[in-house]
Amino acid sequence: MDSFFITLEGPEGAGKTTIINMLIEYFSASGKKILATREPGGIHIAEKIRQIILDPNHTEMDGKTEALLYAAARRQHLVEKVIPALEKGYIVLCDRFIDSSLAYQGYARGLGIDNVWKINEFAIDGLMPNATIYFDIDPKIGLERINKTDEREINRLDLEKLDFHERVKEGYYQIIEKFPNRIYKVDASQSLEQVFEDAKKIIIDYVEKK
Amino acid sequence: MDSFFITLEGPEGAGKTTIINMLIEYFSASGKKILATREPGGIHIAEKIRQIILDPNHTEMDGKTEALLYAAARRQHLVEKVIPALEKGYIVLCDRFIDSSLAYQGYARGLGIDNVWKINEFAIDGLMPNATIYFDIDPKIGLERINKTDEREINRLDLEKLDFHERVKEGYYQIIEKFPNRIYKVDASQSLEQVFEDAKKIIIDYVEKK
Repeated sequence: MDSFFITLEGPEGAGKTTIINMLIEYFSASGKKILATREPGGIHIAEKIRQIILDPNHTEMDGKTEALLYAAARRQHLVEKVIPALEKGYIVLCDRFIDSSLAYQGYARGLGIDNVWKINEFAIDGLMPNATIYFDIDPKIGLERINKTDEREINRLDLEKLDFHERVKEGYYQIIEKFPNRIYKVDASQSLEQVFEDAKKIIIDYVEKK
Repeated sequence: MDSFFITLEGPEGAGKTTIINMLIEYFSASGKKILATREPGGIHIAEKIRQIILDPNHTEMDGKTEALLYAAARRQHLVEKVIPALEKGYIVLCDRFIDSSLAYQGYARGLGIDNVWKINEFAIDGLMPNATIYFDIDPKIGLERINKTDEREINRLDLEKLDFHERVKEGYYQIIEKFPNRIYKVDASQSLEQVFEDAKKIIIDYVEKK
């Protein structure tokens, strides 16, 4: 099996989407079967769930409800899209996965990383990523990048204040300590070209190592 | 505090809704502060979640997605409706709660009662019902009762075959063994008046005992 499940993580505005597009172009050109996806990934049920999560009017949403909804959308996307691609031997690049829930809901919203881990363990059924690339950026710079562009629709989580995004970063740092063998950190404040090179090298090294 | 949290459980067509209405009438007349509710209970976010769960077109829904969605709707309904009522000293009668998830998703769908317990433990945060009334009925009779009436809209779970509902009942029996002190069984094949009397007595005995 040539399949690998690689997730990409980081605060808002870390440049994940651009880098993923560059990675897809590179690996497709070199003849690899590669699929880029992100939750909810065009999966009808997961899209419906995401609409509930991100609706800016849903200010009454409890943090635990939010965490359970993310886990539900994750489950459906995994079953309908990620697992079938892995079974066909694809390298799957997934923009955000379990670590986002641990950082955003578990740490930043204060639900507890271990508590959020439990419901996600149920959702993913042991299918952890083979490797995770963490795009490391100062949340202030990340948010400035988001605000500079009109391309992206502002959602309910973008409306959180800077200190929330600072906590998200702290959360990610704790998760990296928990999973040092799985998570690779890339300095996302570098030039796009350099971030791409770093991410590419991690994937190539990982794929060749196995 | 006079507040009590009482849940009502059982297979489809057990007559819960009718009995709850009779209980509300009785206890209101005797001056008790009593609230009847059922998930999603008019809670906007929980209603939205329930629409996704019950949509008959969502045949691709994974069992774990379904369980996580029920837990999410349960959480929001608990936070917005049940907890505030309990804090005001109400007796809250809730039509279906955690045991439905254990019986339907945990046992009948084969996800495992313990696995579904874990995600619901996260959702309810220790707020278990003080008492639960289980309306015991042969699923075949229950389904015949549902099919006889036009009042009720058929949802995705109603479309399951009889053997699914038989498993639901087996699931409930296992849960009753796990929680013999919390769950009271009422024979729902009796006349409505007798079922009402039995349910009423359980609540009165329970409330007076405390």
